[in-house]
Amino acid sequence: MSIAPAATRPHLSSHKIYVDGPADVRVPMRQIHLTDGTHFRTYDSSGAHSDPSVNVDVNAGLPPVRGPWIAARSDVERLDNSLSSYRRSREADDALSPLRFKGVRKPLRAKLGKNVTQLHYARRGETTPEMEFIAVREGVPAELVREEVARGRAIIPANINHPESEPMIIGRRFLVKINANIGNSAVSSSIEEEVEKMTFATRWGADTVMDLSTGKNIHETREWIIRNSPVPIGTVPIYQAVEKVHGKVADLSWEIFKDTLIEQAEQGVDYFTIHAGVLQGYIPLTAGRVTGIVSRGGSIMAQWCLVHDRESFLYTHFEEICEIMKAYDVAFSLGDGLRPGCTADANDAAQFAELDTLGELTKIAWDHDVQVMIEGPGHVQMHLIKENMDRQLDVCREAPFYTLGPLVTDIAPGYDHITSAIGAAMIGWYGTAMLCYVTPKEHLGLPNKKDVKDGVIAYKIAAHAADLAKGHAGARERDDLLSKARFEFRWEDQFALSLDPDTARAFHDETLPANAAKSAHFCSMCGPHFCSMRITQDVRDYAARLAAESSPTALLSGKH
Amino acid sequence: MSIAPAATRPHLSSHKIYVDGPADVRVPMRQIHLTDGTHFRTYDSSGAHSDPSVNVDVNAGLPPVRGPWIAARSDVERLDNSLSSYRRSREADDALSPLRFKGVRKPLRAKLGKNVTQLHYARRGETTPEMEFIAVREGVPAELVREEVARGRAIIPANINHPESEPMIIGRRFLVKINANIGNSAVSSSIEEEVEKMTFATRWGADTVMDLSTGKNIHETREWIIRNSPVPIGTVPIYQAVEKVHGKVADLSWEIFKDTLIEQAEQGVDYFTIHAGVLQGYIPLTAGRVTGIVSRGGSIMAQWCLVHDRESFLYTHFEEICEIMKAYDVAFSLGDGLRPGCTADANDAAQFAELDTLGELTKIAWDHDVQVMIEGPGHVQMHLIKENMDRQLDVCREAPFYTLGPLVTDIAPGYDHITSAIGAAMIGWYGTAMLCYVTPKEHLGLPNKKDVKDGVIAYKIAAHAADLAKGHAGARERDDLLSKARFEFRWEDQFALSLDPDTARAFHDETLPANAAKSAHFCSMCGPHFCSMRITQDVRDYAARLAAESSPTALLSGKH
Repeated sequence: MSIAPAATRPHLSSHKIYVDGPADVRVPMRQIHLTDGTHFRTYDSSGAHSDPSVNVDVNAGLPPVRGPWIAARSDVERLDNSLSSYRRSREADDALSPLRFKGVRKPLRAKLGKNVTQLHYARRGETTPEMEFIAVREGVPAELVREEVARGRAIIPANINHPESEPMIIGRRFLVKINANIGNSAVSSSIEEEVEKMTFATRWGADTVMDLSTGKNIHETREWIIRNSPVPIGTVPIYQAVEKVHGKVADLSWEIFKDTLIEQAEQGVDYFTIHAGVLQGYIPLTAGRVTGIVSRGGSIMAQWCLVHDRESFLYTHFEEICEIMKAYDVAFSLGDGLRPGCTADANDAAQFAELDTLGELTKIAWDHDVQVMIEGPGHVQMHLIKENMDRQLDVCREAPFYTLGPLVTDIAPGYDHITSAIGAAMIGWYGTAMLCYVTPKEHLGLPNKKDVKDGVIAYKIAAHAADLAKGHAGARERDDLLSKARFEFRWEDQFALSLDPDTARAFHDETLPANAAKSAHFCSMCGPHFCSMRITQDVRDYAARLAAESSPTALLSGKH
Repeated sequence: MSIAPAATRPHLSSHKIYVDGPADVRVPMRQIHLTDGTHFRTYDSSGAHSDPSVNVDVNAGLPPVRGPWIAARSDVERLDNSLSSYRRSREADDALSPLRFKGVRKPLRAKLGKNVTQLHYARRGETTPEMEFIAVREGVPAELVREEVARGRAIIPANINHPESEPMIIGRRFLVKINANIGNSAVSSSIEEEVEKMTFATRWGADTVMDLSTGKNIHETREWIIRNSPVPIGTVPIYQAVEKVHGKVADLSWEIFKDTLIEQAEQGVDYFTIHAGVLQGYIPLTAGRVTGIVSRGGSIMAQWCLVHDRESFLYTHFEEICEIMKAYDVAFSLGDGLRPGCTADANDAAQFAELDTLGELTKIAWDHDVQVMIEGPGHVQMHLIKENMDRQLDVCREAPFYTLGPLVTDIAPGYDHITSAIGAAMIGWYGTAMLCYVTPKEHLGLPNKKDVKDGVIAYKIAAHAADLAKGHAGARERDDLLSKARFEFRWEDQFALSLDPDTARAFHDETLPANAAKSAHFCSMCGPHFCSMRITQDVRDYAARLAAESSPTALLSGKH
């Protein structure tokens, strides 16, 4: 298997550097070289894929950067045999050999009685190398990282079986993060495509990737993705559990689900979406909705409850789930199975009833020192967005919020990366810690590579806009450097500093293709004869002359 | 000249209807036919171009729908000779003949002592056919239209020399409108391209179009555009005035500018951007900015003031400008020449000083019964947007606000339709009446047809999201119909109700091309074996059963 070179070459005028920190951490960053001799360093989620000196072999996976840190804590052991019967059956099936990632590791697990979560360490007052790494990456004190994790206001998704991932944090005092969903379905996509989408997503800035595969060979696909992913991987385990019972929801059981959790935790999934808040009693609250229950996980659990006339096994077995989570440090992403599927259903009784339950479950997970974030909607008109954030902070005691959009209107299928980037930017400003992207294909089909990129860029915009509005330290620097480059007609610098240098340059070339135009002191909008920006020098000279002639006060009160 | 068929065929499942109203108005609407036998009527800005029964000939222009109404008021006269010396010189130049629109009409002008503005009529208590037309179009009482215009809270851009335009209103109690900029520049584009862009823009929903041409043959290009435009056309007359002095700003004069106003008013331009708030005394306030003065009109006037060390002639001759405006009913779009060119410069002293002056000028224009809207920024981080709206409403006494975006971050050239749609949606919600689109090419090059469409769609999203958030009557209906169609797997209806049926359908075809899939009760996301939406029927049955067994109260209190 190989990945297209377009997914791995460095960005324009950029190269990967590694910043050394305490505890032997080496934090990758992208250094952008400007034509005025300065440079700008930015957060880099693309991993070794964008470092030509590493020469990544997809068939071998990424180097396990966290391996030594995990081993040094002496609280894990490597199992000779998987605890998942499903994994054992897949491994015994020779027909799957051609699909299989070579060199699958035996799983790590917490030693008996040990809790290996970052939350557990943080509460014990330990600053882990993961926290040191994040402190350098975010430009904040390591103690802030530890404190926020200890308080449950931030999480570090970091499964001990995913040592390839570069530590990152999700919490509202840090940079707003974005997630990209990939995954094959019963009708489409191959393993190779999914690995390439993951690499594309992180290249353009995805901070985590969710593998939402529902088709064939989910187990094998996921192994390839995790081994090559420099970012945490999330999943919705119930999707695979349903595949295991051939789509017959009635046949689902706690035993099958539990085996799936263990199977995925052993592979290294960093967070699980678990729709444990979809209670039997809430289901009737959705009966009058325009679009009922649209969350797949939510509707699976609703159907299961109806068929068996019993409470959800995700809820009744929640403490057992916590026991599994803390043995691998898998974080909860408590799913909003009753989220609105259209703006008409936003902020209704079903949605907020479930949120209350997610608040209760947060407390239980915290009692186990298991990390938690909370998923949020979905489809919400602008004026109803803030209520979602305020209630979530209150009910879930400031556990990080992780929202899908929200889409602020339903009338633009084909453009839902835009309808949702509007809501995402706003809710990010209000305090959401991670934004789950939406691609242009949402509601219409499965995203291809271009859609993944379009979704990621739209969400980098939303997340950065939120950072700016929150006044996040340092967030403005890139805007100001780009604006200055724009003003000074340093076209190459404007491209290099942009979220997508390839597109910025291509668009400029469409109107003024000549290379000379890249240094021209004009652009295609006004042409060479007149330029607004050029006039500013005259203004500055005039202001300086006035200032020399009179006092600054007189100058500023010069209103007609 | 001809326009590509793609710009004129009716949208999917749609046909043009005309709704009869009082005063013999016939209001065009787009009727979307749904597969369940119902239909949905929506606002239609595309004019006769999308009505196959009209068979528009671009060389002859659109039918002058407003002609009889203008004539019936008996307050205008047709001039034998243009009052613009520039127009007379162009008409005398035989070399321009091949470029010229055939059948240019002689200009109309108000009779001596008459004021032909919609504001003048409204204040006199007259409900014009234009107002009746708008009332039907917006689904509101005609008296509301008249009142809002009379109060200055809404404008109807409706030059007596642009009878082809279908009346529309800009005001915050009505649907939020969008403007699309087109125009050639010194380095690019032909007349034919510009007419096609205008047709494209209105096809996808632009409510007004600004012709920002700065290149050759501006006069002739504009004639073609206006004669074929079903929507009001705006311009920035100073651009052409600068062309007339060959880019030498120092050579600009009131006389040249005045002749340009008359030239354009006679052609039928419906609103003029005039940067009369850029006062000499404000210029030094921009000296410390990251990007100085980026408005072209603003920088032209700043340079003129500096060179001549005099107050702006736009300001000193403002009352004379009003006299011209009211003789044709050209509305002011008071330009924000000192708007920020980057987020670093947002909401600064220069910007707000100019806004204060725009407030003063609004009052003067209103004393002449001339219609006014106010232009706004630009580049503004999310948390600073609301201040713009609040100050504008206060200072400009609720005259309609017309903003460019704002862009909420500077780091995404190539995607500024998205960075700005975020700000546009928000400021639209806060009360902005019209949103000036930004295309993906902003800052990089001139938009082509695809860019125009991308910009228009992004802004239709922003405007509609704002309508929803404002709770505008009827705005939700399309969302709810589309959501219902989505839920019921009526794919064709989902496409037809979307802002861009072509793209929605093409995206669906990419994953599930077979025509049968259009009626399939599943989609590519989950495949045929499992479907969230299908489960809802089970939920509804369950809820009905529960309701039969117990009281509704017991059912709803099922939370534990």
